[in-house]
Amino acid sequence: MTTIEFLKPNANITARRSAIIEGLFNLLPADCVISDERELVPFETDAFTAYRRLPLAVVLPYTTEQVADVLKYCSTNKIPVVPRGAGTSLAGGAIPQEDAVVIGVSRMTRMLDVDYDNRTTTVEAGVTNLSISDAVSEDGFFYAPDPSSQLACTIGGNIGMNSGGAHCLKYGVTTNNLLGVKLVMFDGTIVDIGGKALDAPGYDLLGLLCGSEGQLGIVTEATVRLIVKPEGARPVLFGFDDAEIAGACVTDIIGSGIIPVAIEFMDKPAIDICESFAGAGYPMDVEALLIIEVEGSDEEMDAMLKKIIRIAQKHNVKNIKESQSATEAAQIWKGRKSAFGATGRIADYICMDGTVPLGKLSYVLRETYKIIERYGLRVANVFHAGDGNMHPLILHNANDPKEAQAAEDAGMDILRLCVDAGGCLTGEHGVGIEKRDLMLHQFDEVDLNQQMRVRAAFDPDWILNPSKVFPLDIEQRKVS
Amino acid sequence: MTTIEFLKPNANITARRSAIIEGLFNLLPADCVISDERELVPFETDAFTAYRRLPLAVVLPYTTEQVADVLKYCSTNKIPVVPRGAGTSLAGGAIPQEDAVVIGVSRMTRMLDVDYDNRTTTVEAGVTNLSISDAVSEDGFFYAPDPSSQLACTIGGNIGMNSGGAHCLKYGVTTNNLLGVKLVMFDGTIVDIGGKALDAPGYDLLGLLCGSEGQLGIVTEATVRLIVKPEGARPVLFGFDDAEIAGACVTDIIGSGIIPVAIEFMDKPAIDICESFAGAGYPMDVEALLIIEVEGSDEEMDAMLKKIIRIAQKHNVKNIKESQSATEAAQIWKGRKSAFGATGRIADYICMDGTVPLGKLSYVLRETYKIIERYGLRVANVFHAGDGNMHPLILHNANDPKEAQAAEDAGMDILRLCVDAGGCLTGEHGVGIEKRDLMLHQFDEVDLNQQMRVRAAFDPDWILNPSKVFPLDIEQRKVS
Repeated sequence: MTTIEFLKPNANITARRSAIIEGLFNLLPADCVISDERELVPFETDAFTAYRRLPLAVVLPYTTEQVADVLKYCSTNKIPVVPRGAGTSLAGGAIPQEDAVVIGVSRMTRMLDVDYDNRTTTVEAGVTNLSISDAVSEDGFFYAPDPSSQLACTIGGNIGMNSGGAHCLKYGVTTNNLLGVKLVMFDGTIVDIGGKALDAPGYDLLGLLCGSEGQLGIVTEATVRLIVKPEGARPVLFGFDDAEIAGACVTDIIGSGIIPVAIEFMDKPAIDICESFAGAGYPMDVEALLIIEVEGSDEEMDAMLKKIIRIAQKHNVKNIKESQSATEAAQIWKGRKSAFGATGRIADYICMDGTVPLGKLSYVLRETYKIIERYGLRVANVFHAGDGNMHPLILHNANDPKEAQAAEDAGMDILRLCVDAGGCLTGEHGVGIEKRDLMLHQFDEVDLNQQMRVRAAFDPDWILNPSKVFPLDIEQRKVS
Repeated sequence: MTTIEFLKPNANITARRSAIIEGLFNLLPADCVISDERELVPFETDAFTAYRRLPLAVVLPYTTEQVADVLKYCSTNKIPVVPRGAGTSLAGGAIPQEDAVVIGVSRMTRMLDVDYDNRTTTVEAGVTNLSISDAVSEDGFFYAPDPSSQLACTIGGNIGMNSGGAHCLKYGVTTNNLLGVKLVMFDGTIVDIGGKALDAPGYDLLGLLCGSEGQLGIVTEATVRLIVKPEGARPVLFGFDDAEIAGACVTDIIGSGIIPVAIEFMDKPAIDICESFAGAGYPMDVEALLIIEVEGSDEEMDAMLKKIIRIAQKHNVKNIKESQSATEAAQIWKGRKSAFGATGRIADYICMDGTVPLGKLSYVLRETYKIIERYGLRVANVFHAGDGNMHPLILHNANDPKEAQAAEDAGMDILRLCVDAGGCLTGEHGVGIEKRDLMLHQFDEVDLNQQMRVRAAFDPDWILNPSKVFPLDIEQRKVS
């Protein structure tokens, strides 16, 4: 058994690390603890990839009680903890920034309850996003939030980042589809928040957890809303001669009160990249493309589409193409959802994630192109236009340090532009490491202090996913 | 000027009260401070009415800065503060429970911005709920949450209680329609949270404020979502021979994925009361009535209605009546919205507010009738069935102390029933004074301690709306 001395934060580092690992092996079955350096490598970064650090150890528990045991141990001994879903964060949310124990939920993959009367399912945190929809699909249901990484990402990670996706325009993001969680707090206390009923008395702790990036506790189970699959769904392609005009068309559609399931935007470079990868049948003679999906019965789809086409015509739409079959519809979405992967084949890129008020969509697009031009770079824009959630992919050569720096600087300029237009730093990827320094562009210190007071109310010793979300020098104050 | 001595919490009470009032007159224009006992009477209770206490003083500021000055003064001198909108709380949320200064927002009634491109409006906290819709109605917009008190209640109060209404089934409650606020914190600090864009980085403090019952700060401005009015709307009456079967029909409609704008439920006593008051044209030969409203184009309404009728027929619906004109539609809603007032004409009543998972609607209705019978009372049920948000009105004679006590006990039994069925203590009225002791039936002490830690992160001295929401003996711990 480990001695207290070795576990003190200021003990000899190597001895302390060994003692911690021994302590973890005492708590969990041997197959739940990873401490071998080679085996730790997959956990040193996430999809952000700009930063790497080997964790002190990784634990992969099977049960909530095991998660609680580890958290109790870590908080008693002031050991930083990093929660991890599938490691698909694009903002560095799952990277161990300090000498930390990673708690991964990848083995907690049971579906505990499916309740069609209440249209809910309760799953463990390691269940992947898509597998929920897969499990209920035959019975006519699905889970709405659909990040592009949905094949891999977990519901636990989705809650941490308040994940969205293309179809969130109609159905909302994670926070709108989450009804309850089992949460392990910093000291191992297990609490249940929410349940199958709508609303709850007291403060909205459930909403607070969504997007809290693992800093308020570790979710081990979640009860989420199931949605009934529509009778039919039809993605329709709208081609325009001008990106800004396509943006104005989106503003006009939403401003008219029409809420399709999805309005996705692609500019010319994005169309070229996705079409050559997926052969989706996108028009190649346009400067911008909107993929607008309507759903419901044939009459409902026709009625909504008629209104959308009328607005698109006012904006000089060049061509309109309805998918004629399920295969065509799948191709259209395959093209859109492979945008990031397809871009990665032709160049290095960084993907920004800012959200702007819909009335500013055209303005922000125009200014984005100006910023990119100023840095001498190229950009492909492919994003959730109906939500105002922009995703410029800034292309560059990562092996040229000057160009890599230019891409990063341009990205930060674009995010500042989004904030200055009345928008915000992130739509769905979170703050993580990537944007923590920009938080002072969005908030002032008074705001951030209040956010940190809320955090301290959940994690008084600041052991949960430290060095994320807040600028480092401000986090150092560790308010309580 | 007041002396420090008089303002100490343990100073002579009369002297301290005079000193506080003098201090408030020094801070604000004379017409903003009420200290005369007769003029304080309107502020001694709210629509809960079960408890009365004259406040120490009432201030009615015109500006955010004045609210900030008063909060700074009160927090410096440890004076309890009770925020007040229009005083329509049904749970005692606006009653001064301690010797407190009431800060009313009734004079902050400016509409600061209307932005149709972004479908938002920014208003001061004292603007009434209905006046938002009135102001934008001619341009084709409305504000969705519609509590029955919408003619009087303020947007500030709506945020404090996370208010709902009949049409929230489709459009969500306050938290789903709020985009940003200006918040004055306990010490007078003014912060802006959220804005016109969807989502925001960092913790979801905006969601946390919704339903926090004035304990985290005072909202002075709010930016809310505007919705485009549908082409048409049609309430349809569905009569049933059995209340439980009507409940099962609601479960089935929602379980099928159909989300009308509203599904309201009335049992026989409620139908009788509302029909005799409003002459709404309700069928009198049924045991239960559903008012189901569909909206959209004629084709859209027809399509949805067809599906709903098919389900209702499976549940042996007895009669179906569509409103044939705008006048008829208005009558139908007038009957529903006057339910509380109409009930008050024939008997004293207390209105419960519990929410249950939809699959439990029939079960909870059946058990509710059993509880009422056990206490020898009568009940009228009229509620937002699509949300599972029940409102049994327990009829009794308030002048008979035994019967009044029985009504209160029956109400508490019904709320416990809701919680035990997997539901919760409140759908939209809040906890306030009424349900604070029941919070321990919903939560355990660990949960409540965590909620109190969050509160302490906003109000470390516990001056904001004290003695509400938490059981008194637990609140006394004043965790920090």
